[in-house]
Amino acid sequence: MEDLAVPAPLSGGFTYLVAASQTLGLAVILVLGAWMGVYRGGIAWESSELQFNVHPLCMVVGMVFLQGDALLVYRVFRNESKRSTKILHGLLHALALVIALVGLIAVFEYHKKKSFPNMYSLHSWCGIAAFSFYVLQELNEAVFFGGCGKACCSGACGWGCWTLKSLIAVILQWLLGLVFFLCPGVSFSVRSRYKPHHMFFGVFLFILSLATALLGILELLLFKIRDSYSAFVPEGVLANILGLLLVAFGAVLAYILTRDEWQRPPLAEELALSMDFKTLTEGDSPAASH
Amino acid sequence: MEDLAVPAPLSGGFTYLVAASQTLGLAVILVLGAWMGVYRGGIAWESSELQFNVHPLCMVVGMVFLQGDALLVYRVFRNESKRSTKILHGLLHALALVIALVGLIAVFEYHKKKSFPNMYSLHSWCGIAAFSFYVLQELNEAVFFGGCGKACCSGACGWGCWTLKSLIAVILQWLLGLVFFLCPGVSFSVRSRYKPHHMFFGVFLFILSLATALLGILELLLFKIRDSYSAFVPEGVLANILGLLLVAFGAVLAYILTRDEWQRPPLAEELALSMDFKTLTEGDSPAASH
Repeated sequence: MEDLAVPAPLSGGFTYLVAASQTLGLAVILVLGAWMGVYRGGIAWESSELQFNVHPLCMVVGMVFLQGDALLVYRVFRNESKRSTKILHGLLHALALVIALVGLIAVFEYHKKKSFPNMYSLHSWCGIAAFSFYVLQELNEAVFFGGCGKACCSGACGWGCWTLKSLIAVILQWLLGLVFFLCPGVSFSVRSRYKPHHMFFGVFLFILSLATALLGILELLLFKIRDSYSAFVPEGVLANILGLLLVAFGAVLAYILTRDEWQRPPLAEELALSMDFKTLTEGDSPAASH
Repeated sequence: MEDLAVPAPLSGGFTYLVAASQTLGLAVILVLGAWMGVYRGGIAWESSELQFNVHPLCMVVGMVFLQGDALLVYRVFRNESKRSTKILHGLLHALALVIALVGLIAVFEYHKKKSFPNMYSLHSWCGIAAFSFYVLQELNEAVFFGGCGKACCSGACGWGCWTLKSLIAVILQWLLGLVFFLCPGVSFSVRSRYKPHHMFFGVFLFILSLATALLGILELLLFKIRDSYSAFVPEGVLANILGLLLVAFGAVLAYILTRDEWQRPPLAEELALSMDFKTLTEGDSPAASH
């Protein structure tokens, strides 16, 4: 049973890297804001020109910064209850989705006002793929992992709990919960087996969003300053630095998320509960299950 | 000692995913070849126009396909000796570096012939960062992991072995080997602690290379067919599909590389050797070391 013991305290590197990731994330937003403010005229929804600038700001805040931070919460708040961490994780993802949706509406409305065609560039293809899969991933998360962490999908906790996710997600969760209730043995094992795939897909979508942001930076530069870009004008250099900051933010975050020793350890009460539930649903004894 | 036991045989999914990754990788090269051949006039070194087309082909074959496959070999050839796998890993990386270098020379020569400026775009900044770090990573690999897997850096295997890496790398390896020989206790623990960082950095560089390839596709399209790109001309659609194939190749490869259960297990003789060596250098008993 030694792998169930509470692991050693986090090394100092973890705290510094989390601080570095947040500094890089804020630097990304500041540099992007400076680019839009100083060189692209600022943002304004009711404008045929400036409405476009809402798009990069919202997409980077939503699909990069908030999505990235949502992935971090399980490791950063490792000593909080699973329920609180789940709520924060869900809230950050929901906020990221809403902000990204505003960014998408901004660019489609701008294209409509200017009679520009939609969805022809590699940036738009990657972006719409990332956004669509992100919506699916969030619905999936609500279905498989929504709830208080007390196996509510199989009805074991009575009424379940409200994780502030969308109404559709909750309905889906309870529909699948009904299936799990009818076949309780499925719930625990399916969720356990599904979790690593869900985590991989989360990191994949975050990286795809980052790559889409890089494509967006280059596309905007080649549309707006194609002739002066090669002369190392300040706008081009600033936007390139923004690209490198995005890469650095992604690298630090991915490093924190992939270090085995910084995984969130199961708390004592979660361990006891999951073992009991496994015994209940799989007819297995806690001692024999290891 | 249960974590030292030989794990269960690979699930069928592994074989299918490796096959899928190779199919996607070959599809990437074919689609890129078709793009260059059909729409960009083919390739020719002694040409002021067609020399450019050597660049995307070499960079994708070297920095994406071969670099990706080099990362896979430890998992695919899991039952071969560590020495053979290391040689294949090193050969693929060395081949990738040489091919990528040809691709870099092609684009710099093309720019010189046409009097185009160098290194101003986000694609070139990300590309040169990826290539430089890749060279450093390979030198580092030769220093820390080069050899037959029998702790040759500390002189335990006599003359060491030739991994077909570059001369500089071998000199560096033996210089550091000398340091390790003087302080043998450092070698085993430093290399064990460094390995996960080396693996993370390898996957990071592969993903950065992929993102650079996406930027390169978009940059070439906006330079060559900017006005017709938005009309969904066949060249634009083909290049966008190439971008999605690159994303799919990266996703499948990253999935295979990050599944814990598909890690290469240490073979019986490696286990015995590493335990003996640890005992020898750290004054630790095999029984107490677990």
